[in-house]
Amino acid sequence: MSLTIKLTITPHIINLNLHPKHRAKIPAYSLGFRPKPIYHSNALIPILYNNKQPRMSQASVSGSVIKSSLIEPDGGVVVDVIVPESERGSKTLEAESLPKVRLARIDVEWVHVISEGWASPLKGFMRENEYLQSLHFNSLRMGNGTVVNMSLPIVLAIDDETKENIGSSKDVGLVGPDGDLLAILRSIEIYKHNKEERIARTWGTTAPGLPYVEEFITPAGNWLIGGDLEVLKPIKYNDGLDHYRLSPQQLRKEFDRRQADAVFAFQLRNPVHNGHALLMNDTRRRLLEMGYKNPILLLHPLGGFTKADDVPLDVRMEQHSKVLEDGVLDPETTIVAIFPSPMHYAGPTEVQWHAKARINAGANFYIVGRDPAGMGHPTEKRDLYDPDHGKKVLSMAPGLEKLNILPFRVAAYDTVAKKMAFFDPSRSKDFLFISGTKMRTYARTGENPPDGFMCPGGWEVLVKHYERLQAEEATPAAVSA
Amino acid sequence: MSLTIKLTITPHIINLNLHPKHRAKIPAYSLGFRPKPIYHSNALIPILYNNKQPRMSQASVSGSVIKSSLIEPDGGVVVDVIVPESERGSKTLEAESLPKVRLARIDVEWVHVISEGWASPLKGFMRENEYLQSLHFNSLRMGNGTVVNMSLPIVLAIDDETKENIGSSKDVGLVGPDGDLLAILRSIEIYKHNKEERIARTWGTTAPGLPYVEEFITPAGNWLIGGDLEVLKPIKYNDGLDHYRLSPQQLRKEFDRRQADAVFAFQLRNPVHNGHALLMNDTRRRLLEMGYKNPILLLHPLGGFTKADDVPLDVRMEQHSKVLEDGVLDPETTIVAIFPSPMHYAGPTEVQWHAKARINAGANFYIVGRDPAGMGHPTEKRDLYDPDHGKKVLSMAPGLEKLNILPFRVAAYDTVAKKMAFFDPSRSKDFLFISGTKMRTYARTGENPPDGFMCPGGWEVLVKHYERLQAEEATPAAVSA
Repeated sequence: MSLTIKLTITPHIINLNLHPKHRAKIPAYSLGFRPKPIYHSNALIPILYNNKQPRMSQASVSGSVIKSSLIEPDGGVVVDVIVPESERGSKTLEAESLPKVRLARIDVEWVHVISEGWASPLKGFMRENEYLQSLHFNSLRMGNGTVVNMSLPIVLAIDDETKENIGSSKDVGLVGPDGDLLAILRSIEIYKHNKEERIARTWGTTAPGLPYVEEFITPAGNWLIGGDLEVLKPIKYNDGLDHYRLSPQQLRKEFDRRQADAVFAFQLRNPVHNGHALLMNDTRRRLLEMGYKNPILLLHPLGGFTKADDVPLDVRMEQHSKVLEDGVLDPETTIVAIFPSPMHYAGPTEVQWHAKARINAGANFYIVGRDPAGMGHPTEKRDLYDPDHGKKVLSMAPGLEKLNILPFRVAAYDTVAKKMAFFDPSRSKDFLFISGTKMRTYARTGENPPDGFMCPGGWEVLVKHYERLQAEEATPAAVSA
Repeated sequence: MSLTIKLTITPHIINLNLHPKHRAKIPAYSLGFRPKPIYHSNALIPILYNNKQPRMSQASVSGSVIKSSLIEPDGGVVVDVIVPESERGSKTLEAESLPKVRLARIDVEWVHVISEGWASPLKGFMRENEYLQSLHFNSLRMGNGTVVNMSLPIVLAIDDETKENIGSSKDVGLVGPDGDLLAILRSIEIYKHNKEERIARTWGTTAPGLPYVEEFITPAGNWLIGGDLEVLKPIKYNDGLDHYRLSPQQLRKEFDRRQADAVFAFQLRNPVHNGHALLMNDTRRRLLEMGYKNPILLLHPLGGFTKADDVPLDVRMEQHSKVLEDGVLDPETTIVAIFPSPMHYAGPTEVQWHAKARINAGANFYIVGRDPAGMGHPTEKRDLYDPDHGKKVLSMAPGLEKLNILPFRVAAYDTVAKKMAFFDPSRSKDFLFISGTKMRTYARTGENPPDGFMCPGGWEVLVKHYERLQAEEATPAAVSA
């Protein structure tokens, strides 16, 4: 029985409404092969495309109509607005003839996100109708009446001069920060950018000091321009990490290739410590208990903008590799890839985006912890968001009903067992909470965290990063001299 | 043929999805009688209940299961949490034994709103799950998966001391500002009142000077208490206007009695000028053209808290009466009643509440104009909301799909025709826009507005109000001496 046929006859195998007992009765997936671990070489794409034993028909590999038991993407189809190579020349010529909009770095990240379908069914930057629905309802109603989640406004700001320049043109060309023509935006609509309202409704505060706001909204123009994107070629960063940037379609193909019957996503923007690992391994155990035969973990660090004191992406990716090499996570059932979205630090509003985008990549289980996408209040001595609101809002969010939300128990360092363990309130004094901030302080000061907090290989990556950083900070004159 | 039967066989007569042409084919309502106009005596309730020719069976008059072709209330049933008279004694005794929460004036307005079912299916002050859904999604998902609109948090704030007092009690008694026991709140839940987040997400700004915020949120406690209400007796204000305060059930009965096949609601907090009247009359004409036989206008002034410079309720009610007496609106097809909600001035967020509450009262058409529930930005020289956002948001709001939104064309004073008319952009210089502020300035300064702006009887009410006000302002010493 070929995989393609099997998937065809069980299209709803991971449907939320199917009771685990029934699920367990469905013929299992142990077809006698195991995909090779892919993290060592960080070379998933070659494995995907150079696979010498094709397990799917060509149609299902190359087309967008893969027969799959994975969760359906929002809107039914993963959006792909990257221009086919055959049309690239003519579209580029056309783009050159259009009025231009110069993109900031953050805009390119959003072009990337939209182009690969993370925001499906969104096909471009939001027009006002979409923007208002996102702002007020955290969701979009589709033409057929179904509702998809869309909690963050995905918008492109322009200034007065650019608006003037565009005049009455229906389409514009989008130019990257270094002058490359990146995309065409079609059937544009220009509307007011009320920054105060956007910030208040997205973050639930207008206090100064919100990283995304300060960096990208305050300096942005007073207009928003929406329209349908046509991206001239895939967005690449040439930072040595592009092979980790798997699109939702690539991830779906890989999940299918591995015959995943459950995909559980773990969003993170911090190094992986053993508490995270405990949680991910425990989740897999629970899924197996529920009757799933082959749950696959999508370890999915966020790769776009993060605030200055977060650990940079390249260091995190190196750290994640070590965690897999050290065997803390099982490479056979784990896929590490970069989620290209920028970070808003918008708590309960943002966690919906993090979950929704993973649906589009094929994940039907989403792990959510304490205070997801949260941070300290920028001007008051408290968390910006109630730490419990993220998982509560997520569990009630319109358009996410089909996603299984897995709230996790808090893990902390058990000073008796000398390892990370689920917090036991009955002996709370035995537990040591090590926050991201505390972890970074350890690494920066060269102090070792307690044994068993993180695998040694991963910890070393962090220590080296902060050593480099301190060396750089100690010799700023050398750079500017 | 009795009315009850007729309504039973055409339960979906005003369903949105029914094409007007089909609607027109349904046997019409001209059964040869006309209800008496009810506005003159302001005594609708006696007419409703002392009707000597019972046109409905007793069951349908007294019960909550009226057979009706009116739009279905949110959740299927109009909530009524007023304790039946037979249980009042025992419930009052019980309430006396419970920990007490002292209500502010605004809280009593909300108890009123909830008790009569304007906020159906909400049965009490919001618990955290409802609060979060309201704040983030402007809607609530019901147990059966359907979604109802709920854009404003309807919450009760308490301070630390009250929370302490309540301890672990499951129920509390609610006491009015003058010490009356008003209600029991059952199965309570106490959670944090993050004022900043509530304000930001509701108003889209945290600028100082928002009337509802300054009056009722800033001074309120740091906790919210949710639970199910049991209201000991109907809320009355004894201000001579209680007979105007018809509940959703009373309104539905009256619409049924009048055999309305369409009910169009007009929310207002200002005196009615001839531009409003033009609009309401034009709406009726359009509904008749659409095939409706007996559209009834619900002229529905807001009766709860309004900001200090708005015209007070009693003056407005007197003015509205004059407008009907002067024949500007047709008493036979108009019901004037008070909507007991307080005003938030929260623009696109609040207009959803205004519309949703009218669904519960039986309205299937809602008229929306420029900048509904808007005001000037409290600290900047601009409208707080984009004047077009209200109707756009309303037309897309979750849970309001069943409501017909009627955006209206702007009416202004036509200086050539010397009357209020729909604005004609081709001769814009002929039109004079008279805002609420300008109208109040006219009345305050004793200057007459242009002929045809408002019926003389209505205008006189306003002039007299401002004369009284100025007389009072001129002699403040007399009061405090």
